Amino acid sequence: MANGGPEIEQLIQLLARLPGLGPRSARRAVLHLIKKKEQLMLPLSAALDRAVVAVKSCEVCGNVDTISPCSICSDARRGESGILIVVEDVADLWALERAGVGQVRYHVLGGVLSPLDGVGPDDLNLDGLIGRAHGYSEIVLAMNATVEGQTTAHYITDRLAGTGIKVTRLAHGVPVGGELDYLDEGTLSQALKARTEI
Amino acid sequence: MANGGPEIEQLIQLLARLPGLGPRSARRAVLHLIKKKEQLMLPLSAALDRAVVAVKSCEVCGNVDTISPCSICSDARRGESGILIVVEDVADLWALERAGVGQVRYHVLGGVLSPLDGVGPDDLNLDGLIGRAHGYSEIVLAMNATVEGQTTAHYITDRLAGTGIKVTRLAHGVPVGGELDYLDEGTLSQALKARTEI
Ligand SMILES: [Zn+2]
Ligand SMILES: [Zn+2]
Repeated sequence: MANGGPEIEQLIQLLARLPGLGPRSARRAVLHLIKKKEQLMLPLSAALDRAVVAVKSCEVCGNVDTISPCSICSDARRGESGILIVVEDVADLWALERAGVGQVRYHVLGGVLSPLDGVGPDDLNLDGLIGRAHGYSEIVLAMNATVEGQTTAHYITDRLAGTGIKVTRLAHGVPVGGELDYLDEGTLSQALKARTEI
Repeated sequence: MANGGPEIEQLIQLLARLPGLGPRSARRAVLHLIKKKEQLMLPLSAALDRAVVAVKSCEVCGNVDTISPCSICSDARRGESGILIVVEDVADLWALERAGVGQVRYHVLGGVLSPLDGVGPDDLNLDGLIGRAHGYSEIVLAMNATVEGQTTAHYITDRLAGTGIKVTRLAHGVPVGGELDYLDEGTLSQALKARTEI
């Protein structure tokens, strides 16, 4: 027997595809939703409907927001610092924002160069970065401290060589092999303050 | 700044309330949903809408299904065995069904007696159980092997004393302090086969 009919079974299968949830935790989540129908299931259903309609990818930086250009790209004060931070994913942008790094702008690559996985320069938002870099006085490369992250940083540094734009990277406060989104906010903040020129 | 606007922030906060998800995994889940908008976010939104409308609690046994009486209570073959298995939660019913325990019926108590937490007999679906028990030849008490679970089993045994209905419990294959929903299916199946009369 399927658990409580096809509607429930399908909900379990879809939730099980979320990162961090497996079949067992998806079953628990669905039972929890059903138990808390008024307080949680209905609001979640409505929030998901609204997000489906409202969420878009920023045409400038690749951030997700409900407007494009996003609220960060639309904020003139953030342009005045002249600092553009390049990140792999939106999760990293969110992590830096939670760390309160200040009035900066971002550029989301949407991944890293990884020849083994077939990810080349054309698969990332690199042309967009080169196209907008001239509007900034400093490009901070905030890729993860992984081999692919650092390879991508080297590639960007090469592409920007000769433009006169200052290129920096996060200080070696980021643990080797670590990922930005797992760091505490103090470490991230320190790493940005102590950034070094490449 | 909120992560990408109020719609996204609200979705994160609601998902973070699911068991097994915290704020960080909820953020990852939302970004994953946004990335897989067509393949995952839209189907999940639709599945949730359908489940909100369709899912109901079975008026007979407390199972969740899209019909009431549920598909188990409506299945005449399941009545012929004369076996009614009493469980704490729907998750336990699902676990027994996955174990393939056969043509049985269930009764979901919706919890266990727990004086310290203020849960008394009136807070559980106990009257419903006593009311329908006479239609069965054997009541299997399949509560968790916790103090509260066993207290509840004793209470039910007392209430059924003198009715002539055979009352059994799961065999001691269930680890002491363990919860049904965490057991592998073979253990559950064995525990049911070796059930003993109380
Ligand atoms: Zn933007
Ligand atoms: Zn039922």
